[in-house]
Amino acid sequence: MTDALFSTERLDRARAAAAAAGLDAVIVTPGADLRYLTGYHALPLERLTCLLLPVHGDPVLIAPQLEVPAAHASPAGRLGIEIAGWQETQNAYEFAASRLPRGIGTVGVDNHMWAEKLVGFRDAMPGVRQELAGPVLSDLRMRKTPAEIDALRNAGDAIDRVHARMGEWLRAGRTERQVGQDIADAIIAEGHERVDFVIVASGPNGASPHAEVSDRVIERGEPVVVDIGGTMPDGYCSDSTRNYVLGEPPAEYAEYHAVLLAAQRAQTDAVRPGITAEELDAVGRDLITEAGYGKYFVHRTGHGIGLETHEEPYIVGGSSRPLEPGMAFSVEPGIYLPDRHGARIEDICVCTESGGDRLNRTSRELQILR
Amino acid sequence: MTDALFSTERLDRARAAAAAAGLDAVIVTPGADLRYLTGYHALPLERLTCLLLPVHGDPVLIAPQLEVPAAHASPAGRLGIEIAGWQETQNAYEFAASRLPRGIGTVGVDNHMWAEKLVGFRDAMPGVRQELAGPVLSDLRMRKTPAEIDALRNAGDAIDRVHARMGEWLRAGRTERQVGQDIADAIIAEGHERVDFVIVASGPNGASPHAEVSDRVIERGEPVVVDIGGTMPDGYCSDSTRNYVLGEPPAEYAEYHAVLLAAQRAQTDAVRPGITAEELDAVGRDLITEAGYGKYFVHRTGHGIGLETHEEPYIVGGSSRPLEPGMAFSVEPGIYLPDRHGARIEDICVCTESGGDRLNRTSRELQILR
Repeated sequence: MTDALFSTERLDRARAAAAAAGLDAVIVTPGADLRYLTGYHALPLERLTCLLLPVHGDPVLIAPQLEVPAAHASPAGRLGIEIAGWQETQNAYEFAASRLPRGIGTVGVDNHMWAEKLVGFRDAMPGVRQELAGPVLSDLRMRKTPAEIDALRNAGDAIDRVHARMGEWLRAGRTERQVGQDIADAIIAEGHERVDFVIVASGPNGASPHAEVSDRVIERGEPVVVDIGGTMPDGYCSDSTRNYVLGEPPAEYAEYHAVLLAAQRAQTDAVRPGITAEELDAVGRDLITEAGYGKYFVHRTGHGIGLETHEEPYIVGGSSRPLEPGMAFSVEPGIYLPDRHGARIEDICVCTESGGDRLNRTSRELQILR
Repeated sequence: MTDALFSTERLDRARAAAAAAGLDAVIVTPGADLRYLTGYHALPLERLTCLLLPVHGDPVLIAPQLEVPAAHASPAGRLGIEIAGWQETQNAYEFAASRLPRGIGTVGVDNHMWAEKLVGFRDAMPGVRQELAGPVLSDLRMRKTPAEIDALRNAGDAIDRVHARMGEWLRAGRTERQVGQDIADAIIAEGHERVDFVIVASGPNGASPHAEVSDRVIERGEPVVVDIGGTMPDGYCSDSTRNYVLGEPPAEYAEYHAVLLAAQRAQTDAVRPGITAEELDAVGRDLITEAGYGKYFVHRTGHGIGLETHEEPYIVGGSSRPLEPGMAFSVEPGIYLPDRHGARIEDICVCTESGGDRLNRTSRELQILR
């Protein structure tokens, strides 16, 4: 855990943003928002853990008594936040509500708060209006600091090392699941703390963007989409997709992979401050459509990445959000021919003052393995 | 995935229970509830996936168009449920609402539904009352079928095999993290699909019930709490805790471990239909209190287990729920001496017509390793 990543500045900025949004306090349960604000990496469980962040007043981290030592040992303990433990037989929501200042009219809750927690707070704080704090928090989270970009770069390097070793595992006669297990081991060996997903989609399975792995045996000449990612010990995520083939690819596949490659290059080259998410999406979609494959590009261009693999900003049609320096997101157009095969090329890109910076560096060409 | 675990009977029972609870429909997003009802194991992501289960009308599984092939390939595809995909630029909540019958007044939502999804449905279905469907669904889930008990038994056998190998990894001079990594590898090697948690808490770290692992070097003569669990390919979970010491334990530790062992034995022996959760909790707590360690038993006795590691029924003071045949839960009293060391003994137990059935079979004695 890099302490440089965490400071009370994030709490101050969140508090100011909450005030500007008309919230009197923000309540954040375990997940990426809590980790972002405090460095405390707690699992979302049935027992209530949450950060209370009033606009006027000091933050308090509420935790079950038995989790208090773990909370103290986390970066949250070094931020100087009060950590208040509730006892097993107490009503945790009433305990938390009692620690908020009086006069709270509207609370913002993190977007991933469980329904049961929302209802728990509703019952413990009758008359208090609940709104989503997501926009407040994602506005902060999607603009990465240099330390966060470094963390994403480290994650990108780690997943690149896994892609670079693909020839060790991807061989004809093996199943997707066998190859996937080796990849998962390598994701850990190359520095991640957790494997988030391993997609090894061979032949017709490649036509499903989220196919994961199956017991299908991979044959020579079949394209294989490999989309992999994990979480580093500091919480930041990796995500990169490349396409492989064992021996000679089908001619048609080579043709549309080249179209996809040109589209993805054009998109990563187009990243700059001011371009909107939908404009960036269109840069690739238009090229793919002109080549006759538009109806086979069935998803958005990308998603933000940071402490979550999928977060704001989404690079999708209909989003007029302009990109800003510090935003980090995937650029991953795809072409999927139902029941035949598919391809997707994915890099994590950072918007900088001067353009786009690609955090994944392995070759984007179709990778021919022997 | 064992198909015997899934049938439309679960949907029928959920629908009947929802009707009895005054709900017109239940909406279930990805998680254990969705997996229980349909066999579909989807990750909770920002894109809306949910089961719509109206009391009057057919169930529909709503999924992003790009996830539809994965949904069809899951057990849900074999249950004959309609799977309806929404397009990337559609409002998914309005799409889902349009697939519910007219005249819905109250919907039940799964307890883990994210706040943003709740709000999405609230906006798409103005005037419809939202309640927690948790009680309806957990009432079904906590009474396991024989096929589910078999699945939990398999999971228990798998984690027992890991505990049985502890001497391979737990040695003086190694760090908790090093030992934990070996345990994690073994959790997978012994049949789990996923590692859920690995607690290796040595010396004073053992005094924190949820300490996980650190870079602390384990010394001879130090007690080590090892609490580990994972998820099997069919989705069912394991969870078992044993205490180890390298060489001779401190005399005081051996003394209170014996108290704990007697208490945990008394509790597993007391499992039978009709005993309440709080009575079962008291069976162990009273023995520990009589021995003078009551204030060091800082948590409840246990939690239900199934498709989640923590689910109903909770074995906790204040719960007058009577145990019933088919209920499966942990029995895990603990004693924690702050800044010194701690101990916890945990088995998964099933309540049967004739008493309790323990699914973990390794010795509960303090394990002396050389």
